[in-house]
Amino acid sequence: MSATELHGFDPRTGARLEPAYPVAGPDDAARACALAWEAFGAYRRTGLKTRAAFLDTIADRIEALGETLVDRVMAETGLPRARVESERARTTGQLRLFASVVRDGGWLGARIDPALPGRTPLPRPDLRQRRIPLGPVAVFAASNFPLAFSVAGGDTASALAAGAPVVVKAHPAHPGTSELVGRAVREAVAEHGLPEGTFAVLLGHGHDLGTALVTDPHIKAVGFTGSRGGGLSLVAAAAARPVPIPVFAEMSSVNPVFVLPGALRDSGAELGGAFAASFTTGAGQLCTSPGLVFALDGPGFEAFTDAAVAAVAATPAAPMLTTGIGAAYDSGVDRLAAIEGVRELARGVEDPDIAVPCLPGLYLTDDETFLAEPSLQDEIFGAASLIVRGRDRDRLDAIVGSLEGQLTATLHAAPDDPGDQALAAELLPELELIAGRVLVNGWPTGVEVGHAVVHGGPYPATSAPATTSVGTRAIERFLRSVSYQNVPAGLLPEELRDGDPLGVPRRIDGAPEGSG
Amino acid sequence: MSATELHGFDPRTGARLEPAYPVAGPDDAARACALAWEAFGAYRRTGLKTRAAFLDTIADRIEALGETLVDRVMAETGLPRARVESERARTTGQLRLFASVVRDGGWLGARIDPALPGRTPLPRPDLRQRRIPLGPVAVFAASNFPLAFSVAGGDTASALAAGAPVVVKAHPAHPGTSELVGRAVREAVAEHGLPEGTFAVLLGHGHDLGTALVTDPHIKAVGFTGSRGGGLSLVAAAAARPVPIPVFAEMSSVNPVFVLPGALRDSGAELGGAFAASFTTGAGQLCTSPGLVFALDGPGFEAFTDAAVAAVAATPAAPMLTTGIGAAYDSGVDRLAAIEGVRELARGVEDPDIAVPCLPGLYLTDDETFLAEPSLQDEIFGAASLIVRGRDRDRLDAIVGSLEGQLTATLHAAPDDPGDQALAAELLPELELIAGRVLVNGWPTGVEVGHAVVHGGPYPATSAPATTSVGTRAIERFLRSVSYQNVPAGLLPEELRDGDPLGVPRRIDGAPEGSG
Repeated sequence: MSATELHGFDPRTGARLEPAYPVAGPDDAARACALAWEAFGAYRRTGLKTRAAFLDTIADRIEALGETLVDRVMAETGLPRARVESERARTTGQLRLFASVVRDGGWLGARIDPALPGRTPLPRPDLRQRRIPLGPVAVFAASNFPLAFSVAGGDTASALAAGAPVVVKAHPAHPGTSELVGRAVREAVAEHGLPEGTFAVLLGHGHDLGTALVTDPHIKAVGFTGSRGGGLSLVAAAAARPVPIPVFAEMSSVNPVFVLPGALRDSGAELGGAFAASFTTGAGQLCTSPGLVFALDGPGFEAFTDAAVAAVAATPAAPMLTTGIGAAYDSGVDRLAAIEGVRELARGVEDPDIAVPCLPGLYLTDDETFLAEPSLQDEIFGAASLIVRGRDRDRLDAIVGSLEGQLTATLHAAPDDPGDQALAAELLPELELIAGRVLVNGWPTGVEVGHAVVHGGPYPATSAPATTSVGTRAIERFLRSVSYQNVPAGLLPEELRDGDPLGVPRRIDGAPEGSG
Repeated sequence: MSATELHGFDPRTGARLEPAYPVAGPDDAARACALAWEAFGAYRRTGLKTRAAFLDTIADRIEALGETLVDRVMAETGLPRARVESERARTTGQLRLFASVVRDGGWLGARIDPALPGRTPLPRPDLRQRRIPLGPVAVFAASNFPLAFSVAGGDTASALAAGAPVVVKAHPAHPGTSELVGRAVREAVAEHGLPEGTFAVLLGHGHDLGTALVTDPHIKAVGFTGSRGGGLSLVAAAAARPVPIPVFAEMSSVNPVFVLPGALRDSGAELGGAFAASFTTGAGQLCTSPGLVFALDGPGFEAFTDAAVAAVAATPAAPMLTTGIGAAYDSGVDRLAAIEGVRELARGVEDPDIAVPCLPGLYLTDDETFLAEPSLQDEIFGAASLIVRGRDRDRLDAIVGSLEGQLTATLHAAPDDPGDQALAAELLPELELIAGRVLVNGWPTGVEVGHAVVHGGPYPATSAPATTSVGTRAIERFLRSVSYQNVPAGLLPEELRDGDPLGVPRRIDGAPEGSG
């Protein structure tokens, strides 16, 4: 990897985009990480109001980029305008949500167990606890959400909210977008008088830059959204450090959907159409795209598949993000179609004008083949999905038991069908053990950014199953609790002093302050 | 390791204790783990009241063992009666504290973001979140707390509170104690009609049994307190599984203490005596024993060392837990004394009647030697400590920067000395970055079991720096959040249903329920 610059690329037309952007090397990484460490001491002690205002300013400045940003994203990703605009709204909304989280202060986890000098046989010391940030965070931008999971996306917003400086490895698929957004963040850093090292973006390709970031001694945690191979190599590099650090990698998921007999019978055709719409959304380039549907053979099964087939066959090809992703999709569906027991049911409508097209693909197999062939669980990133026809109820348990960890798991159950409801009651507790989010009568694509969402899940969906990378609890990934014993008022962090000068939520002897 | 039974051993007398206890092998481990998995489905769905009552019953039954237990612990560990009785109180108090945690239900982390059907451009789905247990937990008992960090210690109590079945690897140093306490837990399992696999104790020595537990597919998390070598080998084994699992290992710490110039000048002699008392407590066999003290040369330094020397020289040898621990201590202090630039200041009073004696040792070096010799940071498990004489303030920063992650870090600063207070204000933010608990004007030995304590810390003090193994937040290690999207009331977990039928604390749109 000796190239010193790189260009964006329009996957719709195949055109190379100007200008060229400089590529960062290991020396640049070392410099950015050292600066981030230098900034850490001051940045983590910024007041809650300043830090929140900083996040708000980032959102403002991203919006101020206006059409320049939208046009650039569209050119570099091939994503349609409506999607880019809604992703921008999600990104700025996310930044402002984390600003409100910072202001609230509940994330500090402030707790006080007051001294009990008269306790016998031993007096109890004064113990106070709060969370502090781990240190500078390396964020790896994803290709498929050039705004919401990229330079100023959820990982960056939650790390900055936690008080952690951020060094972003920008995704080479959208260098111009990364440059624009990176500049907006740097301007916000300057506007609020924060240390320069609070934020940096490095553009690179290949593994060298990423490895340099993850192994840099100044980096204390990693946020990653991408492929399983990429995530696992970062996990391994982080674990091999003299001082290992956590890697929060959101890696892969096929997001299984179970359509129960009553739902199939009542609404087979409708569900088949909705299923096709869900897995072809955004050329299927979503972490939560439903790549597997299980349905028991019976009334409605044919209506379900027929409707899905009709919808897929009418869905035009759409541009994929990069030539690499396009090639991986094509070989993925070829491999799938070649497996004995798997049948291609439909492909979408070709479009010779698209340079890197994703031709939707729908496939069918049976439960026996599925159980015998573990590779049918591999994610194919793109608009492909596999219907598994089940012979009977008993095999359903074996199938659920065979599934890897997932971001989501979905049940479709007829509300008024006692059989469906009983089966759903049996399956839900099994599905919650393998997924971060469980849905009933919906589709997994579309992830709310709120307080109650979990975008995470058991390995290999993520490398850190107890966490979420979306929603307000994402901040917790970059924090660690510290306890202060008999520390005098003058030396205590403000949020732990008597009288709660910062006005943050606290627990006294385990109960919310003021509740006694 | 082909022995099929093992005996306790009295480190005071060297006597082999009767009876012999059967040693478990890999097959026993596989059986216990399979039973634990089988129990998991039902145990995790026990009501909060039942689960809390179960924990209370364990405490009751441990108390009901009375003198039989106390005598056995004393015989197997050489620990004095007062210590054993206070540790028993801590253990039962811990179980009852977790019972109250379970009843409160705050650990469920219940959150609801209600649907907003009228939101534009897209309606918001109903999202609800709660925590569920990861699955069966393997607990590795420690040698040095035969009750509080053993069969029914903090790891077991917090895992059972979380709804996770537990398989304990008992420590071979106290087999009879483990058998007694294990029986008490099993009786509580039976009394509450819980599945048999909810709890098991396996006795073993060597690595085979431990590896079998950590690599068993039914085990989903590991709690460990012990040596760095032991902890890291479990971490490696867990990471190499097809599906890696978290290992919460509390491994080692030298618990640095900084005595600032004003404190040294005002109370050098008093602090020297208290320091000696702290590091010789329990023959120094505590994770939080202060193994390093830094003090700047100047007024009070000689008084501090003289007092410590006098106290150590008058401290009698005390039995160590096992012959292995005794041998490691002896070779550790021999290695330390042999390092150029390290001087032995004092040893305790020998006692030829003790079979495995720990002869306290106090050592002195200078900051230059300390910075040049990383092995001076190695924990010597036992009553040994090293005073580092500092030349000047500047080198103090280098020393703090050189320290590994610790369970605790302590400052002694004179309350009315502006110089000490200024220096403390500079050092505290650095110390909180390397430790889980920061103390001022105290000693780190003695860990409160409450809501605000952190018994944890950066690597290599622990393998999971964001967690605590002591106190109510220890339950969080064994939980993971799941989000439920548009799940109808009848299929929702009770704690997430409208009206809060379980009466647990919840957050609605991020704010405590009922606060709006």
